[in-house]
Amino acid sequence: MFPYERVVRFHEVDPAGLLFFPHFLTYAHEAMERLFDPLEGGYSRLVTERRIGLPAVAVHSDFRAPLRYGDTAVVETSVSRLGNRSLTLRYAFVRASDRVLTAEVHHTVVTTDLAAMRSCPMPDDVRRVAEAHLESPVIAPS
Amino acid sequence: MFPYERVVRFHEVDPAGLLFFPHFLTYAHEAMERLFDPLEGGYSRLVTERRIGLPAVAVHSDFRAPLRYGDTAVVETSVSRLGNRSLTLRYAFVRASDRVLTAEVHHTVVTTDLAAMRSCPMPDDVRRVAEAHLESPVIAPS
Amino acid sequence: MFPYERVVRFHEVDPAGLLFFPHFLTYAHEAMERLFDPLEGGYSRLVTERRIGLPAVAVHSDFRAPLRYGDTAVVETSVSRLGNRSLTLRYAFVRASDRVLTAEVHHTVVTTDLAAMRSCPMPDDVRRVAEAHLESPVIAPS
Amino acid sequence: MFPYERVVRFHEVDPAGLLFFPHFLTYAHEAMERLFDPLEGGYSRLVTERRIGLPAVAVHSDFRAPLRYGDTAVVETSVSRLGNRSLTLRYAFVRASDRVLTAEVHHTVVTTDLAAMRSCPMPDDVRRVAEAHLESPVIAPS
Repeated sequence: MFPYERVVRFHEVDPAGLLFFPHFLTYAHEAMERLFDPLEGGYSRLVTERRIGLPAVAVHSDFRAPLRYGDTAVVETSVSRLGNRSLTLRYAFVRASDRVLTAEVHHTVVTTDLAAMRSCPMPDDVRRVAEAHLESPVIAPS
Repeated sequence: MFPYERVVRFHEVDPAGLLFFPHFLTYAHEAMERLFDPLEGGYSRLVTERRIGLPAVAVHSDFRAPLRYGDTAVVETSVSRLGNRSLTLRYAFVRASDRVLTAEVHHTVVTTDLAAMRSCPMPDDVRRVAEAHLESPVIAPS
Repeated sequence: MFPYERVVRFHEVDPAGLLFFPHFLTYAHEAMERLFDPLEGGYSRLVTERRIGLPAVAVHSDFRAPLRYGDTAVVETSVSRLGNRSLTLRYAFVRASDRVLTAEVHHTVVTTDLAAMRSCPMPDDVRRVAEAHLESPVIAPS
Repeated sequence: MFPYERVVRFHEVDPAGLLFFPHFLTYAHEAMERLFDPLEGGYSRLVTERRIGLPAVAVHSDFRAPLRYGDTAVVETSVSRLGNRSLTLRYAFVRASDRVLTAEVHHTVVTTDLAAMRSCPMPDDVRRVAEAHLESPVIAPS
């Protein structure tokens, strides 16, 4: 599990005083970017130089409690599924002050050749980082 | 069905040239705001004066094709479920140039007293607007 | 003068209920994008295919009155200066309900070859659009 | 001088690969929020409980070099002017990799009673924090 800590900012809450819900997904993407920091050059080089990206194909989110301006969220990030060309990330948004689970997001991405805009096999270094955060590592049969 | 037309803006695409996926939810929220324009004072008065909001409790999104800078999306909005204190909106994101379905979002919201931050019965005027866009209107039994 | 009408959206106001001030510049950029709609393929083709952009070199903004959620702004856009490789746009943000001037923004941009990231002569079609909105057209001497 | 370090995020760059210029102001506001962390409850309590805010009345920005996805900016923040009801913050955006000054922003804010939306005398604790970052502290005459 990879923890990403994030303060809710002034301009991210809505007139009801609550974190605007699409921003949960922005935080999730930020957590994924940080999770892939061990790649050489990080996620940014993956996208801008190697031209491989991880576009979302499905995102399922459940919201249980609000986050407000001034709250800190710990986005507990893990990989719940790891395929050949796709992976699913799971993000639990825990409010730092009281450890309440405020939201859970499941985010499925496909390794994609951005020039051709077609799926491609997952690069080895991407796989290694993902494996390090896999929830239930596959046990190789003896 | 309520169509909301939206041009993808310069700053809304990511370095891969694609609409950043959380913005699909921002567009969905904009479509919901417009759908509730028939309320007196619109969605803005509902939130800021009557202090009733529609926070999301679940959002499920599937992405099929990209939207890029310069594309126009028609966000076809309907109400797929209408309960006593909640409703589910469905948004089909259709690319205007070729009518390709690029994404589908299901968005469940709960009518909420924002002062108490507790669910409340759906106001009659909110219900009437929602009913006007209900996909399969309930047929009252004879 | 080119008018761009824009509703202040739910997620664009801050916890004080006011349009978050960087969004004035976002609206300004949107107005500029619309102003250049007469280019073939619009501003989006200029940037993504012809690889010419208009990065800002200076932005000066004065704020006089707030915009709030639900307000509509008319962004009255004009070109106050037109050079060989740069131009200055002026945006007056007029609140639609009472015609109050809420903000004024001066935005100087340089026509830039995005591949080389160097200034370049202003393309003729860009100049023609800009000239059509010039505040005090230059009178050619006889 | 108060340094605020900020990584340029994936979704903050435009199709030209450059940090979208309004985000410089968002970073500036973030730096100001962090600068006021020493207030009890921070800037968030100032706004949401004490109902005192610091709306901008003028923002002047000069841009000299781009920031790109993956860059880190150090936003060097100071107070260049401190009045009775207003102050001006200065932000120098230094690119961490090569110490190039990429942008400079001057941001004048007015201490404002958000309920009445009228300027108010600067609270003592706000003044103390601002003074600690004043560029040329006033020397009391002997």
